[in-house]
Amino acid sequence: MPEGASFPITKVNKVKRRHDRGRYDKATVYDILDSALICHIAYVIDGRPYCTPTAFWREGDHLYWHGSSASQMIKTQRDGVPVCLTATHLDALVQARSGFHHSVNYRAVMAWGTAHAITDKEQKLRLMDNFIDRIYPGRSKLIRQPTAQELKATTLIGMEIETASGKIRSTHVGDEEEDYANVPAWSAMIPVSQVLGTPSDCPRQLPGLAMPKEMKPFKKGARLDEVMLASYHATFDEE
Amino acid sequence: MPEGASFPITKVNKVKRRHDRGRYDKATVYDILDSALICHIAYVIDGRPYCTPTAFWREGDHLYWHGSSASQMIKTQRDGVPVCLTATHLDALVQARSGFHHSVNYRAVMAWGTAHAITDKEQKLRLMDNFIDRIYPGRSKLIRQPTAQELKATTLIGMEIETASGKIRSTHVGDEEEDYANVPAWSAMIPVSQVLGTPSDCPRQLPGLAMPKEMKPFKKGARLDEVMLASYHATFDEE
Repeated sequence: MPEGASFPITKVNKVKRRHDRGRYDKATVYDILDSALICHIAYVIDGRPYCTPTAFWREGDHLYWHGSSASQMIKTQRDGVPVCLTATHLDALVQARSGFHHSVNYRAVMAWGTAHAITDKEQKLRLMDNFIDRIYPGRSKLIRQPTAQELKATTLIGMEIETASGKIRSTHVGDEEEDYANVPAWSAMIPVSQVLGTPSDCPRQLPGLAMPKEMKPFKKGARLDEVMLASYHATFDEE
Repeated sequence: MPEGASFPITKVNKVKRRHDRGRYDKATVYDILDSALICHIAYVIDGRPYCTPTAFWREGDHLYWHGSSASQMIKTQRDGVPVCLTATHLDALVQARSGFHHSVNYRAVMAWGTAHAITDKEQKLRLMDNFIDRIYPGRSKLIRQPTAQELKATTLIGMEIETASGKIRSTHVGDEEEDYANVPAWSAMIPVSQVLGTPSDCPRQLPGLAMPKEMKPFKKGARLDEVMLASYHATFDEE
């Protein structure tokens, strides 16, 4: 599907409740994914669901993550199993004058597909470099390349996005009309964001090494979602 | 099981990879859960996994969340289905001198159980008040109580924690010994935290209403995990 298109609405990805909050256009869905570093992945072992947090990234219509070749999640996923990968940004706490209208502002994407291991060595090496660069642009060229043992110990998992949807709430307090006047409860929207602190140098930093210019956005107070989206575009828009 | 005990290690909850990071004692597992507002829940519909973000809270050995009675997640869970509820705090980005040792610091809990609807009306009303107070201590007494229609439209889901485990990484950069000297890549640990911004009053705030004293911790720059843990104890330790 071309960039700019939308995911067809099906039984699986349709936002049924609060459908006004649903988003199916790829531009919105991809921005939410590309602003995230951590996702949660649902998968099934012996009929029992598991929900595992992990770092991930997107390239085109594919999502990628990795793990130890010995991990239960990776062993389960490498041969092709259905998964649901969800990325969520919490943007605000929203109070109201009734319990019913308390809410949070958020941006979330649920993406479904079939996970499988990337076994081609060249592709795997390229993707592992992209994983580093997607977070820290240009870093793959500064670090030591993987050894044969490290490559064997790490499994890279990929999935084509078969379907996906986004869901966004971004409004202020919303109450029943009669409650505004009748319920004397102080109510507010409280913004929430994930921010970076001051980088702490490795205690064994080589003398004379300075923070590379690509790391300048990783400064105290910067929003992680904004830094991740900028890193993403710095790495992939040049290709 | 009494407070202070641990979850027995089974095939399901055992932290297999990096088992040094595994935590099974309830004090640690519950602190990670009680510091979180949002979790991700994995469940299965027609053999396909779903991973849905939602707000939740803990009381004793039970976890609770809610949703629209018309939502797909709630319709699936209300009659008793296996779920995995995961809460994750991202604490730092950790660079390294090889791709293999790049990491993040985090605190996460995966909890398994069987979800079911809370149908007793008195219990449901009490739990819904607790849900509000768990976030904003004392607020349930300030707001309008639910109407019959709101109660019907909202389903409260609960599960006993059958088993759970925590996983924590909280260390600095860790590299292969030879890489410290041989790889001239500036490396750092970059703290990450979820923080509150300045509360934004409801535009229709009644004149003369002031922020209640219980809301004082919700101030600009406060860490959400610390505020949620303090709210939790302010609400439940008094009982």
